[in-house]
Parts: sequence; C-alpha cells; structure tokens
Amino acid sequence: MIRQFVIAALLVPVVGAPTRAASVDGESIVTRGTPQGATACAACHGKDGAGIAQAGYPRLAGLSAQYIVSQLDAFASQRRENAVMQPVAAALSDDQRQAVADYYAGLSLPEKPAQAEQTGDARRAVGQRLAEVGKWSEGVPACVRCHGLDGHGVDPYFPRLAGQHAAYIKAQLQAWKAGKRHNDALGLMQQVAGNLSDSEIEAVSAYFAAQAPGEQRVAGVERTRRAAAIATDSAPSASGDNNQAQDRPFTSPPESRIPDDELGKAVLTGKRVFVATPQYAGDYVGNALSCVNCHLDRGRRDASAPMGPAFVRYPRYRAKNHQVNTIEQRIQGCFTYSENGKPPPADSDVMKGLVSYFAFLATGAPANTDMKIAGFAGIDKAPQKPDPQRGAKVYAENCVICHGADGEGTKLGDDYQFPPLWGEASFNWGAGMHRINTAAAFIYSNMPLGREGFLSVQDAWDVAAWVDSHDRPQDPRFDGDVEATRAQFHNHNCYYGSKPPGDSASQ
Amino acid sequence: MIRQFVIAALLVPVVGAPTRAASVDGESIVTRGTPQGATACAACHGKDGAGIAQAGYPRLAGLSAQYIVSQLDAFASQRRENAVMQPVAAALSDDQRQAVADYYAGLSLPEKPAQAEQTGDARRAVGQRLAEVGKWSEGVPACVRCHGLDGHGVDPYFPRLAGQHAAYIKAQLQAWKAGKRHNDALGLMQQVAGNLSDSEIEAVSAYFAAQAPGEQRVAGVERTRRAAAIATDSAPSASGDNNQAQDRPFTSPPESRIPDDELGKAVLTGKRVFVATPQYAGDYVGNALSCVNCHLDRGRRDASAPMGPAFVRYPRYRAKNHQVNTIEQRIQGCFTYSENGKPPPADSDVMKGLVSYFAFLATGAPANTDMKIAGFAGIDKAPQKPDPQRGAKVYAENCVICHGADGEGTKLGDDYQFPPLWGEASFNWGAGMHRINTAAAFIYSNMPLGREGFLSVQDAWDVAAWVDSHDRPQDPRFDGDVEATRAQFHNHNCYYGSKPPGDSASQ
Repeated sequence: MIRQFVIAALLVPVVGAPTRAASVDGESIVTRGTPQGATACAACHGKDGAGIAQAGYPRLAGLSAQYIVSQLDAFASQRRENAVMQPVAAALSDDQRQAVADYYAGLSLPEKPAQAEQTGDARRAVGQRLAEVGKWSEGVPACVRCHGLDGHGVDPYFPRLAGQHAAYIKAQLQAWKAGKRHNDALGLMQQVAGNLSDSEIEAVSAYFAAQAPGEQRVAGVERTRRAAAIATDSAPSASGDNNQAQDRPFTSPPESRIPDDELGKAVLTGKRVFVATPQYAGDYVGNALSCVNCHLDRGRRDASAPMGPAFVRYPRYRAKNHQVNTIEQRIQGCFTYSENGKPPPADSDVMKGLVSYFAFLATGAPANTDMKIAGFAGIDKAPQKPDPQRGAKVYAENCVICHGADGEGTKLGDDYQFPPLWGEASFNWGAGMHRINTAAAFIYSNMPLGREGFLSVQDAWDVAAWVDSHDRPQDPRFDGDVEATRAQFHNHNCYYGSKPPGDSASQ
Repeated sequence: MIRQFVIAALLVPVVGAPTRAASVDGESIVTRGTPQGATACAACHGKDGAGIAQAGYPRLAGLSAQYIVSQLDAFASQRRENAVMQPVAAALSDDQRQAVADYYAGLSLPEKPAQAEQTGDARRAVGQRLAEVGKWSEGVPACVRCHGLDGHGVDPYFPRLAGQHAAYIKAQLQAWKAGKRHNDALGLMQQVAGNLSDSEIEAVSAYFAAQAPGEQRVAGVERTRRAAAIATDSAPSASGDNNQAQDRPFTSPPESRIPDDELGKAVLTGKRVFVATPQYAGDYVGNALSCVNCHLDRGRRDASAPMGPAFVRYPRYRAKNHQVNTIEQRIQGCFTYSENGKPPPADSDVMKGLVSYFAFLATGAPANTDMKIAGFAGIDKAPQKPDPQRGAKVYAENCVICHGADGEGTKLGDDYQFPPLWGEASFNWGAGMHRINTAAAFIYSNMPLGREGFLSVQDAWDVAAWVDSHDRPQDPRFDGDVEATRAQFHNHNCYYGSKPPGDSASQ
C-alpha cells in the first residue's frame, strides 16, 4: 500500500494506561482503610466488590482499574461530587488509588445479577429498547453502542453496566440529568441523560441491573441475533432540528410491523447484515465496518443517509460509475469500497436480505422520488481551509476515546465496538467517506455519538481532513499507476495519491 | 414435446381466403363497368385506385383483395350502408367482385400521401397518440395494435389506413359512432369509435391520411423505436368501471415526464424492451411474445397487471419458487416462462432498463405496499365447469381473427402483430397464463381488445380452457418425468401432462 500524505504524529493522552505502582497492598486498604484517614472501601462496597444494592452503593468488581482510578481521581479533585467519596479519595495517594482499583478489577464476577427485581414486561421492554435500540429521535443512541453488548463495558471509558445496582445507575443518570455530575467523557452522559424521562431512567437502570454481571462477553453475532429480533413500537427516527411535519412526511415503520412470514425473515436477515456486517456477510467484507457505522440508528437516521429514502431513489444514475445503478448495484458499491470487500451477487441471501430490509424501511415512501432527506445532511462551507493539523487536535479531544489514537477503533473481543477510521481495517480509498466533504458532513451531524452538534463547522472540516489524510486500503480501481488512478477517480476533495486536496476542499 | 390434452379440431371460417375466379377481367370492370349495370369503379376510385380525397372516395389501391371483397359482399347484402355502392356491388357477380378486388389490390402504391394537409402540431400529437398509444383509460387501444405499424394494415381484417383519405376515415368513424355502419369484425370499431370525440376523430383521420401509403412495412424494431420515443401528456391509464377516485389513488406519470438524462435513457430502453421484447431483448427471448402482450397499455392498464403497483410489491415471497424474490428475480421468471427464454442478468442493460421503466411507472406509489390493483382483475366463479369444447366456439367467434385458427397469432413481416396463444412460439407450461383461472381473468377483463367486457364469465372460462388445453413449450422445470413434474409444479388449474384439471378449475 501507498503511504499517503504524512502528517506529524500527535501525542494523544490516554487515561491511566499502565498501572502506577504494584507495591501497595490494595486488599489491606479495601478491608482496613489507611492511617491517613481513608475508611475501608469494603464497608460500603464489600470485600467482594458487590456493593449494596438497596443503598445504591455501586458494585466495583468487574469495573476496569483504569475506570476506578479515573473516578477516584475525580472524587479527589472534586470534579465528581460525593460527600463520602471525596474525602476518602483525597486521603489516598496515587499509588493507593491504583492498588485499590487493581484489587477490585481483579475480582471475579458472580454469574447472576445480585438482584432479580421483578419488573413488568412493559417497563422491561422500554429498558431493553433504550439499551439496545436507543431513542435516536431524541438524541439517545443505544446504550450498548458505547457500553458494549449487554452493557459489559468497553474499557477504559465506558464502564460495565451489567449487574450494576439499579439504584446506583439511576442516581448517576439523575445526577447527569440535573447537572450534578460532570466527569463523563465529552459530556456524553450529561447530554444523553438529559434526553431521558424519569420513567425511562427507571426502566433502563432496572434493565442493566438485571443483566448477569459475570456473563462472558458473547460474540457480537450472538448478541446481534437477539438485538436484531427486537421488535419495537417506538416512534420512528427523526432528527431533532428538522423534525417539522412539512419537512418530514416520511418515517420508517417500527420493527413490530416486520411481517411474520418469509419476507419478514428476509427483512430480519437484512437487518442483521446491516448492523453486524462482518459477522453476517463475512464472505463479502474485507474490513471491520458494518453498514450501521455510517447509516446510524439501523439505517433510519435522517442525518446519516437513511435507507428508506435511499431505496426509493433507485434505479438512479451515478457519476461514480457512469451508469444507471439498481439498488443492488448501489449496495455492491458499498461492499466494494466502504466494506473493502467484494460485491454480494444480486440473488444472494445477503443482497436479498438487505434489499428487503431497505424496502421495509421505505414502506409508504413514494417510489422513484427524491425525498430530499436522503444522504448525509449538509454542512456549510468551512470558514477557513480545512487543516489536518487543527483536525488532529479536534480528534484527540473528541474522537480518540472511541476511535483510538491511531484511528484503529476499539475492539470488544473479536468484534469492533467502535469502527476504525483509517488503516487496513477501515474503508478503502474508493469509499465515499474518504472524501473530506462527505466525512465533514457526516461528522458535523452525527459525531460525537450522542452529542452531535457539539463540533463547530470548522472543527468538523478539520477533523475530517485529519481522518482522511491517513492511509487506508487501496482503491480497488487502482490500475498500478497512482497518478493515473488519481486523475481518473479522485478529482475531488481527497488525499489520494499522497497529495493534499486543492482549494476546493472546503465546500 | 408432449402432446397435451387433445380436443377435436374446429373448423374456423376465414373470410375470402383463396380467389374465387381468375377469368374475369377486373380492369375492364373498373374502367368500363358491366352491362349488368355496375358503373365503372374508376369514376370515383380512379383507375389507379387513388380515390378522391376531397369527396371522401376511398383509396382502394393497397387494400387487400380479401378486404375489398368482404366490403363488396357487405354492400351487396346491405349489411353495409351506402346508396351508391349497394346497387353497384349487387350488380357484380362473386367472380366480378373478386376480379375488381384483385385489380385494386395489385396496384402499386404512391410513396407519398395524396394530400399533405397542414395540421397543427397539437392536433397531430392527438392523432399520433391515438394511433400509436391509444386512450386505454376510455376503452381505446392504439389503432396500430390492430391496423399495424403506421397503419399499413393487417390482412385480412384490419385495412390499411396509411394514406387513406382523411374525409373517408372520418366518415367511417362517424358512421360507426352513430351506429350507421355495422360490418366491422366483432363490432370492434363501433365500440372504439363510440369512445372517440369528434375532434379526436378529426385528428386521427388526419394523422393516418398523412402517412405514406407506399412506405414499406418497416421492421417492428424501427417503428417501435419511434413509438417508444413518443412522450405524451395524455391522462394516465384507468380501467373504465373501476375508475373511481377512492379506488384509484395511483396512476403512472405520463411519458413526457421521463427525464432527459441517463436514467431517462434507461427508462426508454426498458419501455422498448417491454413493448417489443423479441426485438430488443432477443438474447433472452425464446418465443414471439412481448411483455406488453399481457401487460397492456405499456404496462399501465389496471386490469392487466400494471407494472407500477407491481414494482412496489417487491421484494416479495413467491410460492412458485419458495423464496423471496427481488423485482429482478420476478422479471427473470417472466423471461424463463412467459417468454420461454432465459433470464437476463441482474446487471444487464435489458434488466436495468426494465427495472428503471417500472420504477418510472411506479413514481409516487407507496413503497412496499400492496396497492390492491396489481395483478389481473378477478373473475367470478364459472357458472358451469369450464368446457374447452364450448370454448372452441367462443374462440372461433371472437379470437381467431387476430390469434389465428390454430392459435398461431398473426405475423406482419417478421414480427408478430397478434401474439400466438399456443404452440412453440407462445408461452411455455411454466407461465402463469397456462393456468386456466389466470387466463380466464385476463380474457374477461381485456379481450377482445377494444371490446373488453363483451364476453360472459362463462365464455371467458371456456375459452381459457380451450386455449390452455393446447400444447406449448415444455416447462423448463421438467425433469424428464411428466407425472413427477405435474405433481411438483402443476397442482392447479391446468392441463399439464395431458390431464384435464380437476373440479376446482372453475374458481
């Protein structure tokens, strides 16, 4: 592969990567406290780290050491409020905090949840829906999108929720919602919790409390199978600011309307492929990306190329390949470029599933009509020419906790929790997202996930330039001559061929 | 091929097939009349058979001898009214009529029309539209559907219109409309003319008068190319009885809205394939049929499986092949069975053209929705069990003039003017139309063309049984064992395997 436009490496701070000391006896502090005034952690959290459900004292066993340290640091510096914990944490040295964290992180977890609170089917459904599907229409991505499948946590920024006590989760969500807790990464939880009702907070807290804390992190495909089967009557997706009746005549039907027949089976096959593409369409995928990484909310979100309005625009001429494309050919294009794979045949189960899923999402949309809401939402022209150096800073501050310091994404077991943005496991040089303008528009309207709208127009352009300035798999249309390939296929805002884009790159 | 259920052959009368005598001097009668009181034909029709445009005396040159004889017979027996012609024809013996007819039929035709009447673009457009597209919403098929491309006639029932004088055509249409002429085959022209306004009669008469009478009958593909390019703002199709607002929320857009771009080119490619399938998709066609033979009015007619509502029902599960079918797979099925050919690849120009054309016809129709008007209109249960012997009589009286005594259709040059209904050039044993119930429903709602609704429910079932009792190309799914193939694929109302259908065949 060609090394593309090279930009000076940026040092990205990562929270608590290596342990700070191993000589302090964590168990002693947990069970007996310290002479400097730290009370014994076990008094509230237990020597087994189970916490106390009724009191709302959190389970610490199973949290990562990094996360526990970061919270102790926050208590000590008073960035996190808690009358009990602030003096305790302040009384611990850095080494002692690390030792306590290592102790709790090293405990094994019970297989079953501490509490088996009876909860009604309706409330359980609400909780599960928030956890696994989200409420994108009101700015709430699925909890599992960050906290991992079944809420087993994604180190080091997104703590385990499975088996955490409901009273504790609820108290934290209420604290974020009320502006009393501030130490969340990027302010994501303040934003998300602010969009949850009290009853939703109850429901989702109960849901995660009922998950088995010690359950192995199951393979994505297994979890996805369950998630894909969830049918919900939740309101269809809508993007906040544009959600006015006259602008939004169309919404996709809820999944509860997927028919219980052969067509419905194909629709669910398509949904599974869509949300877990490497797992369900591995024969045609050459990287770590799923369709849903760019088409958020299961392909329903207006600002991220929703599939219903896209479906009714095909067949359609595309300048990219100079021909009229059927919906199947368009999908094959995604597999070739965005998935860096190979095109599924038109009559394959993968293709038929995706087309059936898109047709379901398009139910009621007018055929052969440009609905004006397909595609990534627009972004204004950049005030200044996009600068990858400025973008590197935006990236470090806003993107690195999910997508990694080198754009490598975050894995959870064998699967990716957060997609890689460059490198061999990401989209290739033929994908739409390698164009700075496309990436900028996507980022501006959708990132950071759960706090979209947070980045300025300039930030979005700059960070798009940073992401797209890195190397990635070769364009499948590469003919052995970089200059010729660039001239033929890359006459737009991109870094293909180790050259920066021209002056037109900011619009 | 297997010889299917055999039914006794039926003698079908054909008008004036062989000449009756060759010893009479036609030219003498034409120029001098006869001693028995027949005036010289040339006095009004000219020795060159050109007629007199202003007087409305018809051009006889270029009409078939059979047609001229049939009209002389009708004048003589007073089945056709005309104060001048009735005594003249009555004064001619059978042999003399034939001789006169042979004389005029043998004349060569001028290359240019006799009159070059100036007609406005708007009126010309109306005339051309009626001639080539029809006004199906009000029971008027395209004139050329019976009278041949450019109106050059289809022997022996549908006379040449090209270059016929406008005043004559107009007078005949007005006579049919007013109930003063009755000798048209099946009463078709009485029905059609009754559905034309006076200004439409003017326009279509002028249109055909302006066509070159002596022009060679051009190949279908050439004519179709022109016809396919016609864009019209005519009202979209609607089937008469059901044309109530609440039942018909959807109509396909007029062809004037086909965009002038690459997608529009694909749409027009698809239309060409649709209306002249053997000519434009020959690689995939194994018989003489075009899509439009079953999907009338360019795929717009409600009663004959309109393509717009069909398009939005796919992907869809089909019991026929036990799987979810994309629109491409459904079309491939049509080529495999109804076209007795082979399936066009999903990314072929033929397939992409058809899908683009269907999407165009579906413009505005709600995606993934059963619009309730797709498919052939229903037909009531047959009062008596369908009987192919009764059907043979219905066929002889109503179908044979177009589809031929042995179901062979009618050719015009190399192309088919009217489709064959059985035999090697027709659909095979896997096509939907081989099912008696499907054929009965189609026939009842659509046949005879231009006079649909003329056949009773029982007639439609009987003639469907007659048509479908004949042999045709083998089912492509045939595995070498007729009984096994019948058991696996023909558990319905059909004659496959030389067996009559069961008692369920009448519903």
